[in-house]
Amino acid sequence: MPRLPFAKGHGTGNDFVIVPDPGGDVDLTAEMVVALCDRHRGLGADGLLHVVRTTGHVDAGGGVVGPEWFMDYRNADGSLAEMCGNGVRVYARYLVESGLAAGPRIPIVTVAGPVVAEVSPDSVAVDMPQTTVYGSTTAVVSGVDYAGAVVACGNPHLVCRVDDPAKLDLTGVPDLDSAVFPDGANVEFVGPTETDGPDIDGSPPPRSDLARSSAPHLRVRMRVVERGVGETLSCGSGACAVAAAVLADEGLASGTVAVDTPGGRLTVTLAEGRTVLAGPAVIVATGEVRLP
Amino acid sequence: MPRLPFAKGHGTGNDFVIVPDPGGDVDLTAEMVVALCDRHRGLGADGLLHVVRTTGHVDAGGGVVGPEWFMDYRNADGSLAEMCGNGVRVYARYLVESGLAAGPRIPIVTVAGPVVAEVSPDSVAVDMPQTTVYGSTTAVVSGVDYAGAVVACGNPHLVCRVDDPAKLDLTGVPDLDSAVFPDGANVEFVGPTETDGPDIDGSPPPRSDLARSSAPHLRVRMRVVERGVGETLSCGSGACAVAAAVLADEGLASGTVAVDTPGGRLTVTLAEGRTVLAGPAVIVATGEVRLP
Repeated sequence: MPRLPFAKGHGTGNDFVIVPDPGGDVDLTAEMVVALCDRHRGLGADGLLHVVRTTGHVDAGGGVVGPEWFMDYRNADGSLAEMCGNGVRVYARYLVESGLAAGPRIPIVTVAGPVVAEVSPDSVAVDMPQTTVYGSTTAVVSGVDYAGAVVACGNPHLVCRVDDPAKLDLTGVPDLDSAVFPDGANVEFVGPTETDGPDIDGSPPPRSDLARSSAPHLRVRMRVVERGVGETLSCGSGACAVAAAVLADEGLASGTVAVDTPGGRLTVTLAEGRTVLAGPAVIVATGEVRLP
Repeated sequence: MPRLPFAKGHGTGNDFVIVPDPGGDVDLTAEMVVALCDRHRGLGADGLLHVVRTTGHVDAGGGVVGPEWFMDYRNADGSLAEMCGNGVRVYARYLVESGLAAGPRIPIVTVAGPVVAEVSPDSVAVDMPQTTVYGSTTAVVSGVDYAGAVVACGNPHLVCRVDDPAKLDLTGVPDLDSAVFPDGANVEFVGPTETDGPDIDGSPPPRSDLARSSAPHLRVRMRVVERGVGETLSCGSGACAVAAAVLADEGLASGTVAVDTPGGRLTVTLAEGRTVLAGPAVIVATGEVRLP
């Protein structure tokens, strides 16, 4: 029964098993990922972050030539995933807490390309793939039609505006237009845009150079149904897609939006062609796990 | 942010956070239990096993006068629970693996009274409260009527015989006769009794003095909807109730029944007024957890 060191962490309730393996010595099979992410027989998580040092990040003279860390991210079903906004934020928090990186700015290589995370005591911010709002289409969930905006943020999203996300029945699998979404999409349900009030005034500005533009000036509540998973507590790319759609609805090309997911608040800043996702990311436990 | 040592384990998919605290120094509040059992923001589990040494288990001369260990069991919602068949089996496994007890026979005090667990390499067996089959009643689940036998095994159960448990929609909350079950009940759905076949012939007999009577001679498949929880992978007292009902259906007062839950096989032996529950119980991880 092989044993592995592990950590567990989450960002707004999106949770991850972390397998530290700086030397890349662990041959992490899909079966191992499934066993570790099993919520009853393993540790349990939405996905797994395999922490591996990149090779060739220093040149022959010892100079740093590229990011030191690679985020090998796996879905809970063992499949490879390109990018996960909450995952990379938890990954960066782990690097700093474990002493593997000094921070506050940490370049990280992902399968989708390099990103830079910025770690502060209460928040981790990360550059996400640029968001683009396309046309509109509809989805059917549990027998109800929802019209929404098609948004790309690395992966495809449908952002649907509703009166009150809390009241929706989201137990069904969304029925999407396969001409628009040949590979499916995450579907976000977003309530009315709020522009002031104590929750916004009282919200501390993201403590990050990446998200330095301003405190949030818009706020929305969202729920999300993730492709192949069902409803989840939070989705980083979904929050980015929602922010882009909300700003577009306001006729704005840039700005900061507080996105309240069921798992907590994410803050998204769009400016100068960048999309920055910020919010809490914490390590909950460390230890040793046995694989079956 | 206080830190606690922890372990995590499961018995046929019924999983537990274990908090070792031999000296009873940890004031375990309901809030702490809820945080630890949270599947996204904590470690995640069906319940928590607080491992506390009893006081007064040795007399003034150093002689042992009672069980050394107390199982302080909590539900995931933080409430106290009296007894949990899979929980006490995992508790006993932890005592042996951590070196706190030598085994194989370990007396353990529970809120429902003392029990004796017997630990072997592949299985942990435990004496459960005596099972009694009373009358019959019906339950309505997701619009379907199910007739069943009323069985007491420390807590109340309704055992319903069905053609194929795998095909049932068990998403609804069971509607029970409140005259029969004023405090609700766990409802088990049990397929036809099988009396032979490779799964039974190939099943190793429980390696336990407590369950030494025989290899299983009857086998059933079951699913269970637990009171206040919904469908779970396994339920120890539910397996005992099912075994009692199955034996009664066969006109038998004693015998051994293999009960295949979605989380794995439990083996229940009824003999001489005793009900012994046996099955796998494993420790998956150990480490340190931070409380919010």
